[in-house]
Amino acid sequence: MSADEAALLIRDGMNVGVSGFTPSGCPKAVPLALAEQVRSGRRKVRIGVFSGASTGSEVDTTLAPLGVIARRMPYMTSDPLRDAINGKTDEEVCYADNHLGMFAQNARYGFYGKVDVALIEVCRITEEGHLIPTTAHGCSQTWIDLADKVIVELNLAQPAGLEGFHDVYRVADPPVRQPIPLTRINDRIGVPWLECPPEKIAAIVVTRSEEHPRALLPPDAGSEKIAENLIRFLKAEQAAGRISYDRVPLQSGVGSTANAVLVALKESGFRHLNFYSEVIQDGVLDLIDAGVADFASTASLTFSGEAMKRFYANLDRYRGKLLVRDSEISNNAEVIRRLGVISMNTALEMDIYGNVNSSQRNGTTMVNGIGGSCDFSRSASLTIFMRYATTKGGAVSTVVPMCSHIDHTEHDVDVLITDEGYADLRGRSPKERARLIIENCAAPAYRPYLRRYFEDACKATGNAQTPHILSRAFELYDNLAKTGRMLPAEKGE
Amino acid sequence: MSADEAALLIRDGMNVGVSGFTPSGCPKAVPLALAEQVRSGRRKVRIGVFSGASTGSEVDTTLAPLGVIARRMPYMTSDPLRDAINGKTDEEVCYADNHLGMFAQNARYGFYGKVDVALIEVCRITEEGHLIPTTAHGCSQTWIDLADKVIVELNLAQPAGLEGFHDVYRVADPPVRQPIPLTRINDRIGVPWLECPPEKIAAIVVTRSEEHPRALLPPDAGSEKIAENLIRFLKAEQAAGRISYDRVPLQSGVGSTANAVLVALKESGFRHLNFYSEVIQDGVLDLIDAGVADFASTASLTFSGEAMKRFYANLDRYRGKLLVRDSEISNNAEVIRRLGVISMNTALEMDIYGNVNSSQRNGTTMVNGIGGSCDFSRSASLTIFMRYATTKGGAVSTVVPMCSHIDHTEHDVDVLITDEGYADLRGRSPKERARLIIENCAAPAYRPYLRRYFEDACKATGNAQTPHILSRAFELYDNLAKTGRMLPAEKGE
Repeated sequence: MSADEAALLIRDGMNVGVSGFTPSGCPKAVPLALAEQVRSGRRKVRIGVFSGASTGSEVDTTLAPLGVIARRMPYMTSDPLRDAINGKTDEEVCYADNHLGMFAQNARYGFYGKVDVALIEVCRITEEGHLIPTTAHGCSQTWIDLADKVIVELNLAQPAGLEGFHDVYRVADPPVRQPIPLTRINDRIGVPWLECPPEKIAAIVVTRSEEHPRALLPPDAGSEKIAENLIRFLKAEQAAGRISYDRVPLQSGVGSTANAVLVALKESGFRHLNFYSEVIQDGVLDLIDAGVADFASTASLTFSGEAMKRFYANLDRYRGKLLVRDSEISNNAEVIRRLGVISMNTALEMDIYGNVNSSQRNGTTMVNGIGGSCDFSRSASLTIFMRYATTKGGAVSTVVPMCSHIDHTEHDVDVLITDEGYADLRGRSPKERARLIIENCAAPAYRPYLRRYFEDACKATGNAQTPHILSRAFELYDNLAKTGRMLPAEKGE
Repeated sequence: MSADEAALLIRDGMNVGVSGFTPSGCPKAVPLALAEQVRSGRRKVRIGVFSGASTGSEVDTTLAPLGVIARRMPYMTSDPLRDAINGKTDEEVCYADNHLGMFAQNARYGFYGKVDVALIEVCRITEEGHLIPTTAHGCSQTWIDLADKVIVELNLAQPAGLEGFHDVYRVADPPVRQPIPLTRINDRIGVPWLECPPEKIAAIVVTRSEEHPRALLPPDAGSEKIAENLIRFLKAEQAAGRISYDRVPLQSGVGSTANAVLVALKESGFRHLNFYSEVIQDGVLDLIDAGVADFASTASLTFSGEAMKRFYANLDRYRGKLLVRDSEISNNAEVIRRLGVISMNTALEMDIYGNVNSSQRNGTTMVNGIGGSCDFSRSASLTIFMRYATTKGGAVSTVVPMCSHIDHTEHDVDVLITDEGYADLRGRSPKERARLIIENCAAPAYRPYLRRYFEDACKATGNAQTPHILSRAFELYDNLAKTGRMLPAEKGE
């Protein structure tokens, strides 16, 4: 069927589950055809879009400005969609930022209503009718299982050699759920294909659509310093005989700071690294090539252009070293805890008591979302958050008295790392944490302000467990709104 | 050995792991002897005290005022200890409020330093040298495994018939951890005793010390209304064909509101209820007696005086219907998620976007702690928090613009229930949640204020995803501090 015909199967008011996780493995031709139908005035359609994580530009970035997306879950990274979520466009998008590892389960429970259509990218359909996913499947099997109709995009630009890189496992729901039989990161527990009853397949659209890889910034002085502090911490941890990176897998978040960490790991002297992550970026491919990393389990292969070419040109070299799982498994609390993952994610801001904001700028404006960060932070054996101590050329401190929004509570955060140093918060009371975070993680220019806030709060509350002066807790944001800086330049820089 | 001699084994600067969970199953004679040694001026001792949850009055309430407790984890409910934690006494206690289900694991990892002494209450020592716990063991097996010396309190006031009510399971740590083989709430996966190498046993103290059961307030009009709203929600959920209480176990928090819910469940028409909880209070015993509940798995039997007598007098009637597990298993994310537990806990306050504060009054003063609430809220199939809409005779609204402290983020909270009604937040965007919570959960007297805050915040932020005016977010607390009321009486009542 043509993409245009297939797009007509998506009707106003429907919920559509799309394949993929991050821009990887997302459908492309049908969303573009749907966009064209709306743009040309042929149709007016508003739908719910459910995905594994963020999507390729063909879905969120193309459909959001046209008002096609009424409801969106569980995660996004698209500029125009972000605008629509934050009320900057006429037709607002209701966006619920959900744990990626819980999302498929909650959809099966029926928490989000009916999933009408599954829209799934594949690189091959086998003679048995099995669907071979591309660079990520995300929640594809759940969307297929829940949907009345399945639209398959057979993307011939994706190499058929991707067959064998996937492990698709259907999690049974309570009361008959069994232990997830994954005890080593390279265990295969499912099958390398998606299953779909033929009668559900409403359309097969043959396309040749390139992936749009995500660009990464090269490491800068700040991210290099963060990476250095992280490696210093990991080595101290190993020397103390506690959690050792060579016994448990690492999880590494998404973005340029995370990639800087991976770059630094290459020169760290570490060997036999393993990853149990939701996203594999260029750095992990480099670590495998360098013989530093042995294996990586992931929900998606999200490479930049160069790394994607290298991967496609050498599929057989990476076979057996990379495994792409359902996001329900990559981000599964049971598995993360069993394996003892060391979780390393990027924060937006952190407060002096160890709470972390991953999603809302100034507590109000959605940046991207939590993604899988909470899945890992809660169940990891060691939970690390990283961030530059300041942003905007020193105008914004990422260490604040109280986070303007909290995604990871003090109870879930073991270690905070900035380019200034690290604070090991394990077993520390709130006041002990405050001193460590101010002295080790905050930028020197902000330390006097933070010390004064903390001391004043201790006095004002009679040394209560978690001293705060609520009327002053957000003063830095007020300053920022009024002057463009959290503190005057002479104090703040 | 006498309790006095045994107490001398606890030296200044040591960390002591005590048996039990809540007041149940805690050591009694040795802590009282230690207190007497300090009170009389014979010794000056400051120690770390690690437990399963809170402790009996012999530990926290007796030792805290004497300055014996320097460091305390992971949970407490004692008035004098609370004062010491909140800076109201000369010698402050460093209190780190930790997830109960993660605590034993983190201790084994070495996050909290060495555990020097284990102090364990038992009701019997078998001929094989097995230790039979009493009404709770908590983290006992981990304390025994980590400690150099074990002090056993053989409490003859605890019936030896408690043998058989326990299931003790050692969780292996990564990288060799296996799936926890618990797939039904009544599965026995371990042994009914604690194991201890004889050479570790430094003292056996024979005592006859009564438990001090916890008193429960009878249901009042407010808690009855909360329970009514909860049951209305559960019935609607079942009618919609989603999570049904008769297919998955319930978890019920601690306290009088939680007990009111249990009382109401008895008359709800529900049958074949099962519980997978950390604490079993009187209400569950009543439900079993009434034939409404079939089975309860727990970390502790925390009955009030009357229920405790009924339980002790009829041990054989309850055998096979109650099972006491390690807190690492009762509160284990893997097991909670596998079983699909419906989690029902009491909040301190909630905000209009669905965040919940369980621990800090006005964001500063530790009340008790999070306990196991986060263990359940994150991994349950359905996460419910409950609270009266107002407290202090209407002077305090528990529904606020922004929680002054956050233990459960909006991402973990499915349903909020007050005596006013319930708000089903699943799949809802922050602005949708705000409208539901204000209209369904807030007290009518506070709705105009909350509506105005929300509308003003929408305007001020240009309808951002999570509208807030940070400079006004805590206005109600300022009012409370200044006037003793969040809103003037004519508006607030």
